[in-house]
Amino acid sequence: MVTLKNIAEELGISITTVSKALKEYPDVSEKTRKLVRETAALLNYQPNSFAVNLRTKESKTIGLIIPVVVHHFFSSVIKGIIAQAEKKGYLVIILQSNESYELEQKQIDLLLRKRVDGILISLANETSDFSHLNKVINQQTPIVMFDKIAKVVKCSKVIIDDRKAAYTATQYLIDIGCKKIAHFRGPLLPQNSIDRFLGYKKALLDNDLEFDVSLVYTCECGDASFEEGKANAKQLLKDHDDVDGIFINTDLVAIGAMKEFNDRGVKVPEDINIVGFSNWFMASVISPSLTTINQPGLEMGKKAFKLLFKEIKSRKANKLITHKQVVLDTDLVVRDSTKNK
Amino acid sequence: MVTLKNIAEELGISITTVSKALKEYPDVSEKTRKLVRETAALLNYQPNSFAVNLRTKESKTIGLIIPVVVHHFFSSVIKGIIAQAEKKGYLVIILQSNESYELEQKQIDLLLRKRVDGILISLANETSDFSHLNKVINQQTPIVMFDKIAKVVKCSKVIIDDRKAAYTATQYLIDIGCKKIAHFRGPLLPQNSIDRFLGYKKALLDNDLEFDVSLVYTCECGDASFEEGKANAKQLLKDHDDVDGIFINTDLVAIGAMKEFNDRGVKVPEDINIVGFSNWFMASVISPSLTTINQPGLEMGKKAFKLLFKEIKSRKANKLITHKQVVLDTDLVVRDSTKNK
Repeated sequence: MVTLKNIAEELGISITTVSKALKEYPDVSEKTRKLVRETAALLNYQPNSFAVNLRTKESKTIGLIIPVVVHHFFSSVIKGIIAQAEKKGYLVIILQSNESYELEQKQIDLLLRKRVDGILISLANETSDFSHLNKVINQQTPIVMFDKIAKVVKCSKVIIDDRKAAYTATQYLIDIGCKKIAHFRGPLLPQNSIDRFLGYKKALLDNDLEFDVSLVYTCECGDASFEEGKANAKQLLKDHDDVDGIFINTDLVAIGAMKEFNDRGVKVPEDINIVGFSNWFMASVISPSLTTINQPGLEMGKKAFKLLFKEIKSRKANKLITHKQVVLDTDLVVRDSTKNK
Repeated sequence: MVTLKNIAEELGISITTVSKALKEYPDVSEKTRKLVRETAALLNYQPNSFAVNLRTKESKTIGLIIPVVVHHFFSSVIKGIIAQAEKKGYLVIILQSNESYELEQKQIDLLLRKRVDGILISLANETSDFSHLNKVINQQTPIVMFDKIAKVVKCSKVIIDDRKAAYTATQYLIDIGCKKIAHFRGPLLPQNSIDRFLGYKKALLDNDLEFDVSLVYTCECGDASFEEGKANAKQLLKDHDDVDGIFINTDLVAIGAMKEFNDRGVKVPEDINIVGFSNWFMASVISPSLTTINQPGLEMGKKAFKLLFKEIKSRKANKLITHKQVVLDTDLVVRDSTKNK
C-alpha cells in the first residue's frame, strides 16, 4: 500500500505538506498541490477510507435488511436500491433476516455498530415487537421501511396500497362473473397480508356477496410457497367444489394452485379464475399466463433509497427530519388465468 | 451517541482507564473492568467501528461484484455468500456491474478505496481485459472469482465444469434418439458460454454426428433472454424445420423458445426435445417442465466465501496464500421437455 510518507519521500517534502496538498488546503501553493496530486496518481495512492470516515463521520455506506434474497420482488428492490445508491456514491451492505425476528434484531445492532449512515428495512414475518427499530430512531440514524412495514413505527415508509390492490383484484373477479370467490392469504402478522385480506373482504361486501371465512386459506408464503399453493388448491376442491374464482396472496402460491388444478383436470380459467399478486417474471411465461397485481419492486427500491438519502443529508446539516409515507401505484395485469370481461 | 467520555464521567475515572478496561488490558483491575463493562452495557455504548478498523486494519467487510441481481442463479449465490459471511461476522457490500466492463473497473477501485478485506467477483460479459483484477492481486487484497471467471487471472476460483455439463446435456439428447441437435449459445466472451458450446460440439463429434455451424444461434442472455429465446426458435423453424433437439445455454432462453414452439403448434418434446441450463426455479413449474442442468448457486456462494475467508486469515497471519480452483458438481435434472429414454 502506498502511504503519504511514500509520496513525501518521492518529492522530498514533509508528510504534513502532502496531506494538506491532497486536502487542497490554500496554505500549500497550487504548484505543490498539483505535483502531489500527480505523484499520488502515479504511485496509485488510495486514501485510507477508515481515516476519511473518522474525519467526516460519514461511512457513505447504508445497510439493507431484507427477509429473503432469492425472490423476484425483493431482488428487484435490491437492484433499485443499489442502482440509486451507486449514483450518490453510497455502498449497500445487504443482510437477509430469513423472516426471523431474532436475526433482524442482531442485524440492526451490527449495522449500528458499523455506524452506517442509514438503514433500509423490510420486516420479517415474525416481527411483532419494534423496540429494535425505535432504538435506531432514538439514535438518530435515518431509517426507511419498505413493503413489509410496521404502521406504529415513526419513520419514513414506501409501500403500496395493499388493501386497494386486493380490492381491485377481487372486484375484477366479480366483474367477470365469479359468484363464489376464495382467498389464499399470507401469514397472520405482516401488515400487507392483513391488508390484502381486508381488501378482498371489502370487495365482497361492497358487492353484496357473502363473506365466508371457510373460503379463506392461509399459507406461510416462504420457501415452500409452490407446494402450499398445491395443498391449498387440493383442500379447496374437497371443501368447496363450486368455487369459481380465487384471489391469491402471491404469485408463487397461485402458480402452485394452477399446477394442482391442471393435474386434476380442473380448467383455468374455464372452471376457476385465478388472480395472483406481485407479478413475478414467471407469471408471464407459464401457461396459462397469470393475471396478477403488478408490484413495482425496482421503483420501490429507488424511492426508498431517495428518501433515506434525503434524511441522511438533513441529519448531516442538523436539519429537522420530516417523515414521509410514499404509496406507489399498482395495476392489475390481465392475462389468461381469468375469463374475459 | 454514548462515548468513552460519558462512561468515564459516569464512573468518575479517566477516559484512558475506560478505554483500557474495554480492551481488557491487564493493568486495569478486574473489578474496574467489570464495572466499565456493565456501565457500557447500561448506557448502550457502541464502539466506533471506524476507530476499531484503524486499529485492527480489518474492515470485516467484503465486496461482491455480480453482473445481475434479479436472476435466480445469482440471487442464490448472493444468499450463499451472505449466509456464510454472517457466520464469520463479515458484512457484504453488493455491487451490480450490469455486465459492463467500465462499471466493473470503477467498482473494483471503490472497494479498494473502502479497504474491504477481500473481493468476490463474477465477471461482466464485456470484460476481456483483466488489469483491474491484477491490481487487486498486486495490492495483496484477497480475491476469489466464481462462475464467470478469467482463466488467466491468478487467484482462487469456484466454477462448475461447464464443458462437461454441456456434454452431458447434449449426450442425453443423443441418447433419447435426437439426430439433428441445435445449440442456442450465450455471448462470445464469457468463458462459461465458450465452454458450454465446446461441450456441445464435442458430444456431437464423439457420437459421429455432424457439427453444423448454422445450427448454433447466439443470444446475449441479458434482460431480454425470454424474447431472445422466442426469436431464435422462430428463426430455427425457418432455417431447419427438421431439428429434433436443442441444447440451450440458459433456462430463460429455453422457456422463451418453448413458448414460441407452443404458439406455433410445434410440440415439446414430441417434435423437439429441449434441455436448458441452470435450473431456475421456474423450470420446475412451467408446462412442460424443463429438463436442465442443475447449477448449484447456493453452494457456489458458500464455497467462494469460505475460500476468501481462508485467504483473509492467511494474509493477516502473513502466511503465503495458495490459490485453489474448486469445481462443483452439476447434474442433469430430467423433466418433461425431453422424451423418455
